[in-house]
Amino acid sequence: MPTSDKIRAAIEKSSWIRKMFEEGTARKAKYGADKVFDFSIGNPNLEPPAKFKEVLKELAGDPSPGLHGYMPNAGIVATRKAVADYLSKHNRQTFSADDVVMTVGAGGGLNVVLKTLLNPGEEVIIPSPYFVEYNFYLDNHQGLPKPVKTKSDFSVDLPAVEEALSEKTKAVLINSPNNPTGKVYSEQDLKNLGDLLVQYSKKLGRPIYLISDEPYRKIVYDGIQVPSIFEAYTESFVVTSFSKDLSLPGERIGYAAVNPEMSDKQSMMAGMILCNRVIGYVNAPAFMQRAVALLLEESVDIALYQKKRDMLYDGLAASGYECIKPGGAFYLFPKSPIEDDVAFVSALQEENILTVPGSGFYGPGHIRIAYCVDDRTIEKALPGFEKVMKKFKK
Amino acid sequence: MPTSDKIRAAIEKSSWIRKMFEEGTARKAKYGADKVFDFSIGNPNLEPPAKFKEVLKELAGDPSPGLHGYMPNAGIVATRKAVADYLSKHNRQTFSADDVVMTVGAGGGLNVVLKTLLNPGEEVIIPSPYFVEYNFYLDNHQGLPKPVKTKSDFSVDLPAVEEALSEKTKAVLINSPNNPTGKVYSEQDLKNLGDLLVQYSKKLGRPIYLISDEPYRKIVYDGIQVPSIFEAYTESFVVTSFSKDLSLPGERIGYAAVNPEMSDKQSMMAGMILCNRVIGYVNAPAFMQRAVALLLEESVDIALYQKKRDMLYDGLAASGYECIKPGGAFYLFPKSPIEDDVAFVSALQEENILTVPGSGFYGPGHIRIAYCVDDRTIEKALPGFEKVMKKFKK
Repeated sequence: MPTSDKIRAAIEKSSWIRKMFEEGTARKAKYGADKVFDFSIGNPNLEPPAKFKEVLKELAGDPSPGLHGYMPNAGIVATRKAVADYLSKHNRQTFSADDVVMTVGAGGGLNVVLKTLLNPGEEVIIPSPYFVEYNFYLDNHQGLPKPVKTKSDFSVDLPAVEEALSEKTKAVLINSPNNPTGKVYSEQDLKNLGDLLVQYSKKLGRPIYLISDEPYRKIVYDGIQVPSIFEAYTESFVVTSFSKDLSLPGERIGYAAVNPEMSDKQSMMAGMILCNRVIGYVNAPAFMQRAVALLLEESVDIALYQKKRDMLYDGLAASGYECIKPGGAFYLFPKSPIEDDVAFVSALQEENILTVPGSGFYGPGHIRIAYCVDDRTIEKALPGFEKVMKKFKK
Repeated sequence: MPTSDKIRAAIEKSSWIRKMFEEGTARKAKYGADKVFDFSIGNPNLEPPAKFKEVLKELAGDPSPGLHGYMPNAGIVATRKAVADYLSKHNRQTFSADDVVMTVGAGGGLNVVLKTLLNPGEEVIIPSPYFVEYNFYLDNHQGLPKPVKTKSDFSVDLPAVEEALSEKTKAVLINSPNNPTGKVYSEQDLKNLGDLLVQYSKKLGRPIYLISDEPYRKIVYDGIQVPSIFEAYTESFVVTSFSKDLSLPGERIGYAAVNPEMSDKQSMMAGMILCNRVIGYVNAPAFMQRAVALLLEESVDIALYQKKRDMLYDGLAASGYECIKPGGAFYLFPKSPIEDDVAFVSALQEENILTVPGSGFYGPGHIRIAYCVDDRTIEKALPGFEKVMKKFKK
């Protein structure tokens, strides 16, 4: 075989997604891009904040030497210090630059943490539905996912997590605000999860780690605050990026931070810095490291996403879609009126509406609608959503 | 254990390198950075070309929408097209954008190619001495290195490669101009290697791949031209970066290209694009993808490196160092006068000269001197190099 067996299998398995994607592309070519309503990917439609452009110009004109050279694998010290100060301000603990590794986006950060932690065959518990890219990230380091269904409101089902915990468990991986459901976990739920992990770590005689993937932390609505994972549990990592809140997903810039009170923190950080190097990232892109250090308190206008959520949620609800109203991120995850979510997504595609089957997220019987799109796209797609629902709902 | 066993072992194993690094840092603190002559890392001292800064400014002011968003995982189409045109111009074959994946530096590109190719336990033959980061890259995908000693002039030892070829061999990985030796492989040597692989692939009934890591391609001296690997062998990949020729190692931008005539090219490219995504890179940094598209024919002033090579080579030769005069890259790899290269490096450190033992590159009995430093550093270090050689040479 030319490619590895695993990669060949992955390509074959993902071929239906590609087929779907190709169908979408074909429809755009046939009907015109403005006649196809693409809700299939989380590529933020909002431009980065104006201050980002100012910062880019300022940095592009900086005549200092060495700006584009190697640096410590953990990242530019001044940027790590700025991130640490930001974290100290927004959490009850005090962070130092040594608690932070700048990474190639959250995808890079997750791989760094997972490679640092996982021995072959160790398990990571993940509340489902979830972003299935996690499965690849685990497999990269020979770890195994242990999906645990969330409750009907997409909050963590604690007894189910407890049941999934075993000798093989190395970590729990959460994502709040959540992709694909938009769920934001409550402070009490996180505290309960932390308490369970304390208890179970004691039983095992070694820590079970909690990894919190939170690129949507700033994208929350109705005055919600995303509670700090660091306060809920000591043996915890935060992994995040500036992809969503600054609309920079193509720039691959984010960071991983450890709880300042984590036991074995020093060896964990040494491992993360080594992994950032040896996975081949080497370090996060230098220019963007400099940029984000000046933009930590910035974000796109979240009210614009909230408006989109409301338009779409209200429109779908009026057409008979059953959906939890999400507190954050930019996804709706309504129920499919038929069990076969792939068939429902295909029916929507007939109306030139592109969405993703929930099965692709371990959430069968649902569809994911990414509403980080123009208001007009939402407005013009609503009649199509209604038409397809009518067709299926008895 | 908090970290994985493998990562803990890697950290322990690399502790002497770190100790050395720390010793260097301590010396800089004690004697002043200008009194310590640091030849230990390949961080180019030359600034990026002036045109790079102009391009950055131009791009920073570009008001077009979507410049920092997601793109196809293979990279921005216009950049891949520009790279393909560049390759078509400098090789006898014709490349298309579909033959190119933009990557997070050459480190990213190598991991993408290796993950695409390797099943667990498959071997990659690597002429030694070599950049040992390759071992991590192979291990990331459960591949195994098969080092094969080069000849005394650091050219490929073909009979030794032939002997190393086996049922387990998936690929051969070369690096010319070479880190750590500076060796540039001749056209005839590459042709012979290609012929051997054609022959052995036929025998095995499947292709053995040739991966050429060539970030130093433009950094060559005395009118040398680096021959094209694509012309020497069909089943070949080039992986490279702009880190060295544009002095941008912190920006993590490079590419991987396949031979346009490779068999199974389509599945190989599909695998590489998938791997670029799932290793967590997602895509190469967008802003730098746009920049390098405008800088493909640019480089730093290579004559400045040639001058450094000559100063250092001549100075060391006059002091009794035995060294192959390298045709490219910015490393010298002289013999240590004693078998124990680590002891020799320590003795140089006593003179505030920082180098790396050849053992760290599977090239024991040598030291690596990275001369991408100020001319003054070379000038002022030469007496120390001489003093230490006198001490050991009988």
